[in-house]
Amino acid sequence: MADTSVRMGFQIRSTVKKEGIVEISVARVATPEPKPDEVVVRVDAAPINPSDQGLLFAGADVTTAKASGTPDSPVVTASISPAVMKSMAGRLEQSLPVGNEGAGVVVEAGASPAAQALMGKTVAILGGAMYAQYRCIKAAQCLVLPPGTTPAQGADCFVNPLTALGIVETMRREGHTALVHTAAASNLGQMLNKICLKDRVALVNIVRKPEHVDLLKKIGAAHVCDSSSPGFMDQLTEALVASGATIAFDAIGGGRLAGQILTAMEIAANRTAKEYSRYGSTTHKQVYIYGGLDRGPTEFNRAFGMAWGIGGWLLTAFMQKIGPEAAQKLRDRVAAEIATTFASSYTKEVSLAGALRIDEIAVYAKQATGQKYLITPNKGR
Amino acid sequence: MADTSVRMGFQIRSTVKKEGIVEISVARVATPEPKPDEVVVRVDAAPINPSDQGLLFAGADVTTAKASGTPDSPVVTASISPAVMKSMAGRLEQSLPVGNEGAGVVVEAGASPAAQALMGKTVAILGGAMYAQYRCIKAAQCLVLPPGTTPAQGADCFVNPLTALGIVETMRREGHTALVHTAAASNLGQMLNKICLKDRVALVNIVRKPEHVDLLKKIGAAHVCDSSSPGFMDQLTEALVASGATIAFDAIGGGRLAGQILTAMEIAANRTAKEYSRYGSTTHKQVYIYGGLDRGPTEFNRAFGMAWGIGGWLLTAFMQKIGPEAAQKLRDRVAAEIATTFASSYTKEVSLAGALRIDEIAVYAKQATGQKYLITPNKGR
Repeated sequence: MADTSVRMGFQIRSTVKKEGIVEISVARVATPEPKPDEVVVRVDAAPINPSDQGLLFAGADVTTAKASGTPDSPVVTASISPAVMKSMAGRLEQSLPVGNEGAGVVVEAGASPAAQALMGKTVAILGGAMYAQYRCIKAAQCLVLPPGTTPAQGADCFVNPLTALGIVETMRREGHTALVHTAAASNLGQMLNKICLKDRVALVNIVRKPEHVDLLKKIGAAHVCDSSSPGFMDQLTEALVASGATIAFDAIGGGRLAGQILTAMEIAANRTAKEYSRYGSTTHKQVYIYGGLDRGPTEFNRAFGMAWGIGGWLLTAFMQKIGPEAAQKLRDRVAAEIATTFASSYTKEVSLAGALRIDEIAVYAKQATGQKYLITPNKGR
Repeated sequence: MADTSVRMGFQIRSTVKKEGIVEISVARVATPEPKPDEVVVRVDAAPINPSDQGLLFAGADVTTAKASGTPDSPVVTASISPAVMKSMAGRLEQSLPVGNEGAGVVVEAGASPAAQALMGKTVAILGGAMYAQYRCIKAAQCLVLPPGTTPAQGADCFVNPLTALGIVETMRREGHTALVHTAAASNLGQMLNKICLKDRVALVNIVRKPEHVDLLKKIGAAHVCDSSSPGFMDQLTEALVASGATIAFDAIGGGRLAGQILTAMEIAANRTAKEYSRYGSTTHKQVYIYGGLDRGPTEFNRAFGMAWGIGGWLLTAFMQKIGPEAAQKLRDRVAAEIATTFASSYTKEVSLAGALRIDEIAVYAKQATGQKYLITPNKGR
């Protein structure tokens, strides 16, 4: 058949083996024929986000990564610690596709008018299994990009932009007027600065390196605190007093930072207290942990009264909670501002096989600021 | 004047000195003359709750306690660590009265009908400054005890009973159907068991000693897990599966217990999951920390997905949140069941001066289960 080349394609897959390793490979798989309400998208660009690496590496120690297989069909294996293996019971010995989001061109469409209308269009998708040459998906899940938008521009249309918008929306819905963000020089952090400047929301940025202070100040950030500086707690307290921020979104998770933020919020709240209360200020102080850049334990001293909370924050749970109408509003804003507020930049483009090269893994697995990779599954091997 | 003996009285006071010590003394003070809407209560019984000891000892190391003063006017001093001193800025060099709650007889009343109606009645009060022979307070703040109730029976009418009812009410309002409680063999924990048995709410009790398992089973507890046992995590998981508890109230605060509870809740939730989700179960799992029996840092591994929260829980904040009508319903239930569900037992009665004896402090400051003291300010010195 003439369309055989369209229907077969390469795809990255990840399997946790019971002997305590993850095996990542590039497999050749058949793309399903689209049902009436489905389309097949040729994936031209898919970012490697921190949230993808959880599924890809399964918490393995990537410094143990070893290459095998052939250049055409590479295989990478890496060791998973016994502690991490405990949480992998649910995916043991299952070959899972990877890649939360991406963008490409619709090359085949089912019989329905909605599907047919997408033929030839450049679309963005949040659907999983995007580290592949082709993805069969419901037409309704495709976000049509504005004319002139390239797949590379639209590849990161969901995870970072919607997380950034979801953070600001959560702040508003929970009655806060300003916010704190950690790992603030990240792609997501820069987007958040652009949103907050545009929406006039005070934002306290916490970074981990002195050079990131300048990076954020250059794009207009008013408050940037470097957690590696000896005066960090004082800087943070002053920024909290100035901004009035009582909610924080933390991408780091491990260590003492969440507790430090709550402690500084409490000191800031008590600046205006008139009477001693041994239960602390009555201002509710909240930290949401939405990432795990530090996978170690979270530790805090509870030196911040009784009106506080720490919790997990997950984009998909947030989108479900606000309902389809509110969620669509956020998606529409992303599409409208994809080339400005939500523009991403990438360090490097790699093929599917390239993403499995040990030297590339060593770079992007660090999840360092300014080291973001884009997979281009259809640009050669 | 004939009423001089009524109007002067002894009172316990606590002062944090800038040199890093707490000074606790028994002072002789004048009781204010009651305004029209006020009464003077002769305090006959006031419990020493963990929540009183925070104000009394100001986080000092009680093993450093030293006695001075005279037998009639004893003074106790103890050292406060520099770390704790930081959080004491708000009460530095202020002589503060102590004692959240107690009960006694109205011996003087202001001119208003409401105040006059209380003359001679036995009442319970939550008002602070209860470690005193006399307490002048608004008539509206007095809860009249059912006829035949002794002040000792009514002394602990608020903190423990309302906390226990508030815990069950919080569980209901936040959409959970069963709950976990730590330090579960405490006076409060026993009350909670009686409430849950009566209200048919499944309760998972966590205790720290094998002998406390029997204590709770004897009063009818269905689920009791001993955190000192090697099989604790498995026991806890089974109890969570059986009860369906997804919210916990933790009196301990420090250490790893809060995280262990969330981890076991996640394992229990995943027992019924059909598909692997690397973000964990979508069941929201909540721990409220309402005490600090372990004052060390809280530490957890976040091995429980993304749908979780840890936060502070404070009785007064909860009562404000539910509003006066709902709060009064809880108070009425306490008064009606004071001799049954909410009966307290005490190890020992001490005078105001007796509460400052070094050997007594050494016992009650441990806040051990079954070591609860009652101060009887008018039973001699």
